[in-house]
Amino acid sequence: MLVQSTSRIQEQLEAWVEDNKGHAVLGTTAQYIPALGKEDPSQLGICMVDDDGNYYCAGDTDKEFTLQSISKALTFIALSCHYGLEFVLERVDVEPTGEAFNSIIPFEIHRPNKPFNPFINAGAITISALLPGQTGQKKYEFLLHFLEELVGHPLELDKEVYDSEWQSSHRNRALAYYLKEAKFLEIEVEEALDIYIRQCAIKVSTRDLALIGLIIAYDGFNPITKVKHFSEEIAQVAKVLMVTCGMYNSSGNFAAHVGIPAKSGVSGGIMAAVPPKLHSQTYEFRAGAGIGVYGPAIDVQGNSAAGTMMLRQISKEWDLSIF
Amino acid sequence: MLVQSTSRIQEQLEAWVEDNKGHAVLGTTAQYIPALGKEDPSQLGICMVDDDGNYYCAGDTDKEFTLQSISKALTFIALSCHYGLEFVLERVDVEPTGEAFNSIIPFEIHRPNKPFNPFINAGAITISALLPGQTGQKKYEFLLHFLEELVGHPLELDKEVYDSEWQSSHRNRALAYYLKEAKFLEIEVEEALDIYIRQCAIKVSTRDLALIGLIIAYDGFNPITKVKHFSEEIAQVAKVLMVTCGMYNSSGNFAAHVGIPAKSGVSGGIMAAVPPKLHSQTYEFRAGAGIGVYGPAIDVQGNSAAGTMMLRQISKEWDLSIF
Amino acid sequence: MLVQSTSRIQEQLEAWVEDNKGHAVLGTTAQYIPALGKEDPSQLGICMVDDDGNYYCAGDTDKEFTLQSISKALTFIALSCHYGLEFVLERVDVEPTGEAFNSIIPFEIHRPNKPFNPFINAGAITISALLPGQTGQKKYEFLLHFLEELVGHPLELDKEVYDSEWQSSHRNRALAYYLKEAKFLEIEVEEALDIYIRQCAIKVSTRDLALIGLIIAYDGFNPITKVKHFSEEIAQVAKVLMVTCGMYNSSGNFAAHVGIPAKSGVSGGIMAAVPPKLHSQTYEFRAGAGIGVYGPAIDVQGNSAAGTMMLRQISKEWDLSIF
Amino acid sequence: MLVQSTSRIQEQLEAWVEDNKGHAVLGTTAQYIPALGKEDPSQLGICMVDDDGNYYCAGDTDKEFTLQSISKALTFIALSCHYGLEFVLERVDVEPTGEAFNSIIPFEIHRPNKPFNPFINAGAITISALLPGQTGQKKYEFLLHFLEELVGHPLELDKEVYDSEWQSSHRNRALAYYLKEAKFLEIEVEEALDIYIRQCAIKVSTRDLALIGLIIAYDGFNPITKVKHFSEEIAQVAKVLMVTCGMYNSSGNFAAHVGIPAKSGVSGGIMAAVPPKLHSQTYEFRAGAGIGVYGPAIDVQGNSAAGTMMLRQISKEWDLSIF
Repeated sequence: MLVQSTSRIQEQLEAWVEDNKGHAVLGTTAQYIPALGKEDPSQLGICMVDDDGNYYCAGDTDKEFTLQSISKALTFIALSCHYGLEFVLERVDVEPTGEAFNSIIPFEIHRPNKPFNPFINAGAITISALLPGQTGQKKYEFLLHFLEELVGHPLELDKEVYDSEWQSSHRNRALAYYLKEAKFLEIEVEEALDIYIRQCAIKVSTRDLALIGLIIAYDGFNPITKVKHFSEEIAQVAKVLMVTCGMYNSSGNFAAHVGIPAKSGVSGGIMAAVPPKLHSQTYEFRAGAGIGVYGPAIDVQGNSAAGTMMLRQISKEWDLSIF
Repeated sequence: MLVQSTSRIQEQLEAWVEDNKGHAVLGTTAQYIPALGKEDPSQLGICMVDDDGNYYCAGDTDKEFTLQSISKALTFIALSCHYGLEFVLERVDVEPTGEAFNSIIPFEIHRPNKPFNPFINAGAITISALLPGQTGQKKYEFLLHFLEELVGHPLELDKEVYDSEWQSSHRNRALAYYLKEAKFLEIEVEEALDIYIRQCAIKVSTRDLALIGLIIAYDGFNPITKVKHFSEEIAQVAKVLMVTCGMYNSSGNFAAHVGIPAKSGVSGGIMAAVPPKLHSQTYEFRAGAGIGVYGPAIDVQGNSAAGTMMLRQISKEWDLSIF
Repeated sequence: MLVQSTSRIQEQLEAWVEDNKGHAVLGTTAQYIPALGKEDPSQLGICMVDDDGNYYCAGDTDKEFTLQSISKALTFIALSCHYGLEFVLERVDVEPTGEAFNSIIPFEIHRPNKPFNPFINAGAITISALLPGQTGQKKYEFLLHFLEELVGHPLELDKEVYDSEWQSSHRNRALAYYLKEAKFLEIEVEEALDIYIRQCAIKVSTRDLALIGLIIAYDGFNPITKVKHFSEEIAQVAKVLMVTCGMYNSSGNFAAHVGIPAKSGVSGGIMAAVPPKLHSQTYEFRAGAGIGVYGPAIDVQGNSAAGTMMLRQISKEWDLSIF
Repeated sequence: MLVQSTSRIQEQLEAWVEDNKGHAVLGTTAQYIPALGKEDPSQLGICMVDDDGNYYCAGDTDKEFTLQSISKALTFIALSCHYGLEFVLERVDVEPTGEAFNSIIPFEIHRPNKPFNPFINAGAITISALLPGQTGQKKYEFLLHFLEELVGHPLELDKEVYDSEWQSSHRNRALAYYLKEAKFLEIEVEEALDIYIRQCAIKVSTRDLALIGLIIAYDGFNPITKVKHFSEEIAQVAKVLMVTCGMYNSSGNFAAHVGIPAKSGVSGGIMAAVPPKLHSQTYEFRAGAGIGVYGPAIDVQGNSAAGTMMLRQISKEWDLSIF
């Protein structure tokens, strides 16, 4: 059991959704992707799952939304599973960068021999293109299948969001051609973009994110089904990336004030992995959990405005930080 | 007890020093500070202390060396103790940056309203200038006294290193005048630099670093003396900074491959904080520790070349990663 | 007549070709465009035409080569002729930049409301896309026809060079998508690139470049045919651009040491416009001229290595600088 | 004689001052230098001198003001006179840059082996430090004497402006320490800054600027006194720099719309050199002139707002562009 009695957890989550709903006004829905821009910005939902398989859901949790950048963490894991961590880390670095997720500046200035990390667009496009499969379709299906194995049910593409992003992704095309020039991309630019934009458009629920978060928290092991999905080594690097680069350019602040490995997307989703924890002084311990959040009004950094504030409150109250 | 029998720990550390000594050839002593440049680059030493107060030292651990950038973590903690975290975080951010520790580029491009983090020189000089005290001398003494309380014995300045850095710190002067222009510095530039360069020149041993690392690992609490030096909240942010920015521009790689909150300096020192840990699947737990490393041959990023490799091996073997 | 007796001019040019041929070893043919890379780098040719229509040609002047970046000056003139200078200057600035011709950095840093100038690729692609015509084909034909009017004979595309550039222009695609994102491009990226790459692949001779240079030197007026091709106002801005940005990142040095408005291309061509000149102290005057140079070994900045040195010598000897 | 009858010139200048006075509202006095900030921003004055020594002055021309960045052109000339152009061009480049006059970005990105040009602060401080003389005082006096020779009367320092700039030049100190680090500065930073800030604080009148402009226009020769002050070669490079970098980041626009080699300062002064000119089609010629302008309200680029507009009008009306 995570922290306390089942009914108390449920109550708390409901109260915290109420407490934090208002923070949605600090953000807006992602206007540069028309299909996301039209969402109701006032929504806020959270779903938590513990290692016994108990789900606690509060707020707007019926809604499905697209993975967007959350998919970057999942592609990294899926690819590392297939080819091994070493293969992946030879092709993408794991260093945070202070520049925007879609910036070309660090490439031009530093001419690195690989993208800085898999959570900026440059790194994400690079590794999506490396997914196993002879065609873009096969590569995409590999990832989709991997995710379906994690969540335990079929997943679908949001065609409207895909179309919307495909039309409006000039900046990603610019980045991808830059990657091609730098010889980081082995396949055609349009094919790489297609895979990347498709992975961003996969629909999930907060429940799905909670479950994947739980598996990451438990180092690749699903404590409910007892299935081992990926190695501890991969899970650890994924958590490092979630801490250092998971929340765009406010990853440092999120780590300092929330302290939970997490990855957000501009759809307003956040996937958080709460590892089991030992208290440094009392030696008391508590079990781990996975959390999925949805709050489509995003702040200037690209993170769910209300979702981030809610996670901050939860982490403080329940001492969920890994630090 | 940390991991295993006392004698076994000692043996292991000695073996690992031998294993990793050779990696010193991948670095050189810091040539841009003449007093550091002349050190014997082949040295390598490690000291570990556990929560019972047992010290295990192997290799070149007699040597004292200067804190250099390790002092950035300590000033951050000392200042936060005095004025509170909120005061400090209003004046310096906690976001990692992909640029060099002494870069002016991010300031000119982004014109942030505070330095990116306290571990780049800009942030470090900014917060050193904020130390309590009416004069530079008082400010420096505040920090020195704070550190002496932590290590339990008097500390001294390495006058030769101080002089050497004072003469050669044109780049830091450039940065500091830039900070003055941006109104981040409330005191005179020369005074701020004097404090900063003095804190960098404080002499410590690996034993000292190990003990401070232990206190950070135990969230501000010294498990040996049972003294509480600073709050859990401050320790947590310090650990976040050590993970995201502690090892210059290879912080991400260090987090991925070592996973221990750590801060390095160009003198070749590394201070590492190993928190107590609960295994996510076995629910076994082990106590925390502090580690001090000295290996003056530093790599291109500025970290002890052999020291980093040795910590990687130790972390793998003993599973010390927090991730 | 330009400077002296006809036979003396011819003799001199031949001597200077010999003098400067050896400088070709300071450059190499443009390796990133395979069809250019295979040219014989030792070639050097020059053709000069005076206001009476006398042509003086020396060295390798039989060869046709592609316009490459020289076309940027011509598109600027053609577009300004059709829509007026004001229309064009609202859409592209005329400020030099110290960054590379294909850099994205200044856009990301400064977010200008138009490209810095029409001689960097960003500005060139932007204005090529604005050429009159409903389709890319029409736009290209407009430019081609304009150039044919200037040189007085049909011009052709080098299909091999076009194909070679179309395949390898990832960096230009990156730039163009960036322009699209910034809303500088009104037509489709692929269409804009097609026009741009076609204009770069138009084949000319040093004789053609000399004649166009003469017309620019005479402010849009062809002193041989007495035809006025474009306004003095347009010619003046073209000459300003040639002086401030015409020779890539060594435009300043070229202006200081040669002082002739000129535009170069990575094919090794240089088009130079030598205006009539009044000596400031003797009040003697000499007529203007046009010069075309071909020397396919280009230096690190992208200018014909031998051609630049030859122009430096000619300008010094005959006092051709406008300064 | 320049253009037309003496009384007509005087009349015209007076009319143009009236026409352009209102443009002062597009700028403000330089607020970051308190002693400049308090000037009356509505002032506008112009003084023109022709090769016969006739002066035509209109508007606020009684006022003396400080050279500021105009001094950069004069130090370049003075230094080149003493050591030769080659010596100077080995230590400072002549390439325009799109970055701000006080930017550190291009240095960090490109690590050039010399400053980009002598008209950005980095280049200006570098060459001021090279002035002949064993002490800062001697170096400054060398320049002062050189200028007094040009204008034919003693010049003075504005002590208040000097003090004001000395106090507030954190950014220049940052730059200068950066230059020291890069080994571009052979003397002490504080000494170099002292010379630089003193040269900026030398008081001149529009009459003085007009006369120096005339001498530059006549390639170092004073057509009134018949004294040769510096070589044609030096004058030519000075004019190249004035065209490519003389008007801060709107040098390109000034060249396109005004076309007169000029150097401005944040005091609101502009020194313009109008070379004799031959019309390319009529072969008519007119004599050269020098122009001094004062209008302390400066635009965002740092140029006199009304002064720039007035020069644009004058150049158009009298065809003064060198292009």
